[in-house]
Amino acid sequence: MAEEFDFHPMWESLGMNLADHDMLLGAVGQMYGDMFLTQNNRPKSTSYLDFVATNIHSGRIKEMLDKKEAGEATKIVGSFCVYVPEEIVLACDGIPVGLCSGADWATDKVEEHLPRNTCPLIKSFAGFKLGEVCPYIESSDLVVGENTCDGKKKAYEFFATQKNMYVMDIPNVHDESTLVTWKAEVKKLAAKIEEECGVTITPERLKAAIHAVNGKRRALQRLAATRAADPAPISGLDSLLTVQAAFMDDTPRLTGAINEMAAECEQRVEAGEGVAPKGTKRILYTGTPMAVPNWKLFNLIEKAGGVVVGEESCTGSRYYKDLVDESGETVDEMLDAIAERYFKINCAVFTPNHQRMKDIVQMAKDLHADGIVDVALQFCTLYEMESFAVEKAAEEAGIPFMHITTDYAGEDAGQLQTRIEAFLETI
Amino acid sequence: MAEEFDFHPMWESLGMNLADHDMLLGAVGQMYGDMFLTQNNRPKSTSYLDFVATNIHSGRIKEMLDKKEAGEATKIVGSFCVYVPEEIVLACDGIPVGLCSGADWATDKVEEHLPRNTCPLIKSFAGFKLGEVCPYIESSDLVVGENTCDGKKKAYEFFATQKNMYVMDIPNVHDESTLVTWKAEVKKLAAKIEEECGVTITPERLKAAIHAVNGKRRALQRLAATRAADPAPISGLDSLLTVQAAFMDDTPRLTGAINEMAAECEQRVEAGEGVAPKGTKRILYTGTPMAVPNWKLFNLIEKAGGVVVGEESCTGSRYYKDLVDESGETVDEMLDAIAERYFKINCAVFTPNHQRMKDIVQMAKDLHADGIVDVALQFCTLYEMESFAVEKAAEEAGIPFMHITTDYAGEDAGQLQTRIEAFLETI
Ligand code: SF4
Ligand code: SF4
Ligand code: SF4
Ligand code: SF4
Repeated sequence: MAEEFDFHPMWESLGMNLADHDMLLGAVGQMYGDMFLTQNNRPKSTSYLDFVATNIHSGRIKEMLDKKEAGEATKIVGSFCVYVPEEIVLACDGIPVGLCSGADWATDKVEEHLPRNTCPLIKSFAGFKLGEVCPYIESSDLVVGENTCDGKKKAYEFFATQKNMYVMDIPNVHDESTLVTWKAEVKKLAAKIEEECGVTITPERLKAAIHAVNGKRRALQRLAATRAADPAPISGLDSLLTVQAAFMDDTPRLTGAINEMAAECEQRVEAGEGVAPKGTKRILYTGTPMAVPNWKLFNLIEKAGGVVVGEESCTGSRYYKDLVDESGETVDEMLDAIAERYFKINCAVFTPNHQRMKDIVQMAKDLHADGIVDVALQFCTLYEMESFAVEKAAEEAGIPFMHITTDYAGEDAGQLQTRIEAFLETI
Repeated sequence: MAEEFDFHPMWESLGMNLADHDMLLGAVGQMYGDMFLTQNNRPKSTSYLDFVATNIHSGRIKEMLDKKEAGEATKIVGSFCVYVPEEIVLACDGIPVGLCSGADWATDKVEEHLPRNTCPLIKSFAGFKLGEVCPYIESSDLVVGENTCDGKKKAYEFFATQKNMYVMDIPNVHDESTLVTWKAEVKKLAAKIEEECGVTITPERLKAAIHAVNGKRRALQRLAATRAADPAPISGLDSLLTVQAAFMDDTPRLTGAINEMAAECEQRVEAGEGVAPKGTKRILYTGTPMAVPNWKLFNLIEKAGGVVVGEESCTGSRYYKDLVDESGETVDEMLDAIAERYFKINCAVFTPNHQRMKDIVQMAKDLHADGIVDVALQFCTLYEMESFAVEKAAEEAGIPFMHITTDYAGEDAGQLQTRIEAFLETI
């Protein structure tokens, strides 16, 4: 996609605020340059990530709209949570996109509808909508929300006044009886998406979608496995962006690119080549998801001389660690398999959430992490509360632990840098 | 119950911290005097409330323990939410008690287990436990929690390390399918309470419990109805305390006392006698529950020259507005009727929650309120977010509206007083 192409008419047709959006793109481009392009010794194949970053609001949107226009895609379906099964959207020739947003925007407008004390992720997606600067939100034909945290659950009531919305109900507990309800909820979503897209899900369509998404997950697993090596072949920043891209990019193309990154990282591991010197302090990130362009904390950790080697989060391992069982033959069997797979995501919305603690400790061990950095976005009650259990689990496993509460603003950057440097020194 | 009786040995046997508890009682007694006993022209029958206030940590606890000792009661069952059906506990000869707490306590200890940014109600019950100053928590044999807001859901994980706990699962949505799950959940609770109390629920037992609690609700409805009159026969403070007492006091005795208050208020209405002059600005309170001794806001409103004439809250109308249908004959039918009744409580945990908006507007009209004061405890995402919908509903109905976010500390009292006075002046 040529840089010179003018996307403004497209953005305008989506009803976007062109001047503000140019400003946003400029700021994000600047940040990308400062954070990503200053990294030393990146794998060459991460050039794909630069391509993604360049095209995220432009070429990729055009591609999606062109596909719809050409009849190759039915609808664009946005969502905010990894509990919403993308296989179902793909099986209906829809394009699933993630709408979580990682930058403060139009805060004044947001605070006319949502409390000031709302987590930045929620304020951000509301602000991106009210400020008309997100082409993913604007191009979405349907937005699928989910009853997870209090904040999102109630914010969707507002968002539904802005967009065509459907909300999935997520249980509070992981047990046999809630798995039954959850399976029914997945089937209700399938019916809704079929209706919205005007497509009937056949076994062939669903099987293909399951294979496609499993393929993306396998590629991500393969890439993640290379990060157990010392030196780490790829940075946390690039790894985070790879998962963030998975919510927006074309599935087969991205899968190919991730496999190329994984292949290069495997070679680097063999050659003992890293993005940071051998012996660099290794950090496992755990906590709230990090939506584009919220790269702040990873940047701070890695600029402070650490390297992030894993992410126990929804923009991390939770997105790819489990595959959908591929043995189902009927649509019903496959939807059950999908429901079972998604039910393994250990979000803090579940009570109790012991398996998350086990996953964190296991990942820290497998990836030879020297320390755990546990992060909650400000006013995120769930992750803030669960951090006490994470700390206890880390302590019991003898792994140094640090909890951070932060937002999208840069104001605490200096203070965080000091804290992170001190943490890296002690471990 | 004689004042001279020494309850310290009883408190000690409950494992309470005597010195701290004496301090707490002293502070609450002082506050009660300042807020309640300074009111002019109270109905004489509110002397029962003074009796409740005097005995709340002493005589009432002794009475409960004595009943258990004498074999008249099986177990004391604590809860934090009006979604936990007290009929079931009563049917097992248990004593249901509310554990929500309305004062900051042992904050330092609490913050070792829960985030600083936690709603004061949650911090308070955790602090009452960690500080060993609540005889209701200490005498509870079982504590029944519920998955409602994020904060309570996660805080119960901690509380379960302190007390014998059982958690009910509350849905996110009010619809036919969640009513089915909720009915099953009520039956699971019944089985749990039967087991805990060693009692089998018979139709007779359950019918008697339903009648008893409906009787209490009818008395509260009768009292509430008198508050439609101008002048209002009873203050908001006394009305609030009456509902608060309903979570702690003996059901038949309290029902009698409430009926006496209602009868006196009916006479006062006929005589045109009020707790405040005719024409006093009338306020409908709506929002988060107010647990004992959180009387701060009602005191501010009424000391500023307003009168609270109704409470759309769980320490208000939601507690008594709906009765359990009394026509069921089998235990199963009666448990279904109980589930149906509780399902009508319009907590902000539900999405959407339109019926609450309708209830607020209806109450404001029925009670001839001049304005609505909508309150969220600090860091209560649910009520804070829903306040935007409440404001919209009030606006559409043409009723003056004011939103307040507050906590249990007195620090904002001056500022609140100014805001409330200004609000009373404009309406
Ligand atoms: S953290 Fe929970 S609510 Fe957020 S994306 Fe993950 S599963 Fe969904
Ligand atoms: S970060 Fe926390 S509060 Fe924010 S949307 Fe996610 S779960 Fe909700
Ligand atoms: S406000 Fe909601 S969670 Fe609180 S007591 Fe009422 S129903 Fe329960
Ligand atoms: S006031 Fe709000 S945050 Fe606090 S316990 Fe009640 S619903 Fe939860």
